[in-house]
Amino acid sequence: MSDASVITVDQYFANREGFINDERSLRREHARLSALSEAEARADRVVRQIRATEAQTIWSAENDAVPHPFPGMEFLTSRDIIVKTKLFNILTKMPKGALLHGHLDAMVNPRTLLKLALEQPAMHVRTPNTLNAASIKRTLPEFSPLPKEEWSPLTCLTHDSYMPGEWVPIQKARESFDPNLGGPEGFDNWVIGCLTINPAEAYVTHKTTDKIWAKFTSTFRVASGLILYEPIWYPYIKEFFHASIDDGISYIEARINFGYKTMCNAEGHNIVPAREWVREFGRAIRDVRREMKEKGREDEFLGARIIYTTIRRYTPDEMEWYLEECLALKQEFPDIIAGFDLVGHEDSLHPLIYYIPQLLRFQERQKELGIHVPFIFHAGETLGDGTPADVNLYDAILLGTKRIGHGFSLAKHPKLMQICKEKRIAIEMCPISNEILRLTSSMPMHPLPIIVNHGIPVALCSDDPAVFGNMGLSFDYFQVLVSSEISGLTTLGQIARDSLEHSTLEGEDKARALAVWEKRWQDFCKEVVALDT
Amino acid sequence: MSDASVITVDQYFANREGFINDERSLRREHARLSALSEAEARADRVVRQIRATEAQTIWSAENDAVPHPFPGMEFLTSRDIIVKTKLFNILTKMPKGALLHGHLDAMVNPRTLLKLALEQPAMHVRTPNTLNAASIKRTLPEFSPLPKEEWSPLTCLTHDSYMPGEWVPIQKARESFDPNLGGPEGFDNWVIGCLTINPAEAYVTHKTTDKIWAKFTSTFRVASGLILYEPIWYPYIKEFFHASIDDGISYIEARINFGYKTMCNAEGHNIVPAREWVREFGRAIRDVRREMKEKGREDEFLGARIIYTTIRRYTPDEMEWYLEECLALKQEFPDIIAGFDLVGHEDSLHPLIYYIPQLLRFQERQKELGIHVPFIFHAGETLGDGTPADVNLYDAILLGTKRIGHGFSLAKHPKLMQICKEKRIAIEMCPISNEILRLTSSMPMHPLPIIVNHGIPVALCSDDPAVFGNMGLSFDYFQVLVSSEISGLTTLGQIARDSLEHSTLEGEDKARALAVWEKRWQDFCKEVVALDT
Repeated sequence: MSDASVITVDQYFANREGFINDERSLRREHARLSALSEAEARADRVVRQIRATEAQTIWSAENDAVPHPFPGMEFLTSRDIIVKTKLFNILTKMPKGALLHGHLDAMVNPRTLLKLALEQPAMHVRTPNTLNAASIKRTLPEFSPLPKEEWSPLTCLTHDSYMPGEWVPIQKARESFDPNLGGPEGFDNWVIGCLTINPAEAYVTHKTTDKIWAKFTSTFRVASGLILYEPIWYPYIKEFFHASIDDGISYIEARINFGYKTMCNAEGHNIVPAREWVREFGRAIRDVRREMKEKGREDEFLGARIIYTTIRRYTPDEMEWYLEECLALKQEFPDIIAGFDLVGHEDSLHPLIYYIPQLLRFQERQKELGIHVPFIFHAGETLGDGTPADVNLYDAILLGTKRIGHGFSLAKHPKLMQICKEKRIAIEMCPISNEILRLTSSMPMHPLPIIVNHGIPVALCSDDPAVFGNMGLSFDYFQVLVSSEISGLTTLGQIARDSLEHSTLEGEDKARALAVWEKRWQDFCKEVVALDT
Repeated sequence: MSDASVITVDQYFANREGFINDERSLRREHARLSALSEAEARADRVVRQIRATEAQTIWSAENDAVPHPFPGMEFLTSRDIIVKTKLFNILTKMPKGALLHGHLDAMVNPRTLLKLALEQPAMHVRTPNTLNAASIKRTLPEFSPLPKEEWSPLTCLTHDSYMPGEWVPIQKARESFDPNLGGPEGFDNWVIGCLTINPAEAYVTHKTTDKIWAKFTSTFRVASGLILYEPIWYPYIKEFFHASIDDGISYIEARINFGYKTMCNAEGHNIVPAREWVREFGRAIRDVRREMKEKGREDEFLGARIIYTTIRRYTPDEMEWYLEECLALKQEFPDIIAGFDLVGHEDSLHPLIYYIPQLLRFQERQKELGIHVPFIFHAGETLGDGTPADVNLYDAILLGTKRIGHGFSLAKHPKLMQICKEKRIAIEMCPISNEILRLTSSMPMHPLPIIVNHGIPVALCSDDPAVFGNMGLSFDYFQVLVSSEISGLTTLGQIARDSLEHSTLEGEDKARALAVWEKRWQDFCKEVVALDT
């Protein structure tokens, strides 16, 4: 390059093309670019054209409700704009492949979850203080089904006579909710508000990662009282599967938090062990597959698995208990248990290093039992550089993690990126989650393009869509597409393909999943091309 | 790593240390870590300790004026907190080495610049509309010295009789400034507000890169009327040098925008050509060096050079004119002209590719003339991925750039990072500038740790401190230090050393600069250690 001065303009342009292409060839979709079907190539062009047009029209227009909109801006502020774009509409129809990083307790639209709960006469609600206009914004409801003999005769949560801590049946609490607090609709909005993060919370009130995590964690406390109830658990999982299928997701590996150890049975007794949770999960898979087959749509749902998780808050001894439970479940449900992971705020809870003896022992035990439960660890979901949460990336890789959950700080690790590329350790990237939890302020600032340009496999994930409002995967794909000029529909296709490629599916199952996806992808591309004619 | 399960806990920890160290060894300060002087090693520990303490005290305390403060947060909001920290106080005393990326028209405290202007009877001011409480926020002053025969008899800018576009002597305009607009102090605040970006503009009103650039650019229009006047030019440059020296900067390569072609002479005629600008710059260097020598502080200022710049807005033909002027200046002032660059908003103005024939010709001309004027290009000061501004990085490197200005998007380029590392192309990183211009929302989100961890040389720079309020380099070093656990004082020392190493100094000059810096560094470390005892 120090000889640049002796070359002609033509030579310069020729060198330049090779130089850029040399780097672009690292990207995972690159090899395919020269072998695209006609439909794929045209669909990619159509999508780029629509993106360019909408950047000029929708995203450059000043907007009363959203000052200075731009593609990839804060999701909660721009969601109403996104859903009106042609681009988003196209992506809702895209076959997404696998959803590999989603926490089960945040996978169903909260209004649907509330509706499921309102059908249950045993479900009760209480508050730790009296509710009024001043207190409602900081008061969380606690939900629990109660055994029939404990059903409450109370009828109102907001009456002067209500004593904090007293249970009220959920339906009655809703019906009698103080009209000054909005009546039944006010009840719904209050509960939904406690299950979700709103724009003011993410972008004004809480703003920093640490603060917003407190609100984020509280949504799970509220949701668990509703979900961990056998009569809700099964329809909740089916709802999750159906909504995912409607968004083009054909296979799922869901993280389930087994920290609570038991859930309530139909009679309201908190005695249902994890193996029943898993059994019901299996029943939901079979039933949804049968339903899809009956509709002639069996190719749209290939199944689901569970990544056993517990919270990185326990002592090493407690952790050992969970690890043993995970092994027992794997033995009983070898086709359903897909891996093991720790969840919770990496910046403030225990790093992987805290559990090394237990995690190594877990691997030894697998050898003894002749089973395989891969680690699929969260790591590097942090802004830190050299902090314990960031250093989790080293331990995840040393422990042989199959994929990395988030890997937000991976871009800071040249050697680890190289290893991920060589060993095909896919990164479960959750851009909207990261943005709402304030690791990034917008998509153009997100490290995803760094990972993609390095050629590291990416599986795009929604993380906790019930809390963030990014149901399905269409929103996450949208955010990726609008924040890179290099990426196009072909890139999204590669990410979808990689989600199946890096799932725990193996052998014929994986081959079938990929073949089925490939066929749907070509059909989808034809549909996109048809838009142009 | 797939054999992780057969190892013992002790083996794991041993492997882990080597594994982490293997990656850390890429960092440029790594080789030094095992050979630190006792003072350096202790100073590094002292600084880490103070950082940890202040993270818990100053940055974790809720603060009425600054909600949710955290280390590395928005600079304009946190500046008042930063200046009170012990850490910042230490860094003001650190020998910084070279300042390699600073635009001359934004290098002097705007209050000082205004004071220089108020001493000039020829300096006039006008506005394009009448000033009142409603209009003042969106009205920019225009400054210009006038020839004596054109000096204005008007005495007030804010009187009802003022007609937009009429010149008023600056001193009179200030004295008679409407008391309802704050009187003389209101005049000062108005002018300063037009020369700087305030927190509300950066973080509320403008917020996105495109919007804040409009405000940013306007500050240069205002400042140019004051600076491009020979009686101000020379003291302005001296002020810049002295303030830099006070902050520990010992050598400077300043970018000067020669786009205007001429400045006003003492008599107010706009006829002073670029060669006189450079000559006066040279006089300021000599005078400041002499002054420093007289104070027995000659080691604190080794000199300064000019990177010739013009705006990436001109036609290729116009650009050729500037390139020729740059060559002529290099021939006349071989020790002062250090390189060539294009400035202005990369996202909206012309990319390097637009000027390839002219830039290649510039290199040929150098061969003909037997001189060397390296390119030192701005490139990748953008959030884009594959946009023309991002692609500037390829052209900068293909054209043999000596360093890269900003390189904000470099982290998205694995091959280019490798080249920068191998060919020692230093990145002039300007973290506070990037944050205020909304490429990043805070320092923990800034790509600097990625570049540092890859082992690419970094020169830390202030860019436009008069506009941003980050005078000197102490603020930028502070922001870097508080947003990485890996980085410590040793890292900052390496960055300072690299600024000299990657300057255009050569041979004995460079050796002397490094030796002088090394001595000052050791003294500084001893000072830091003394804080601890």
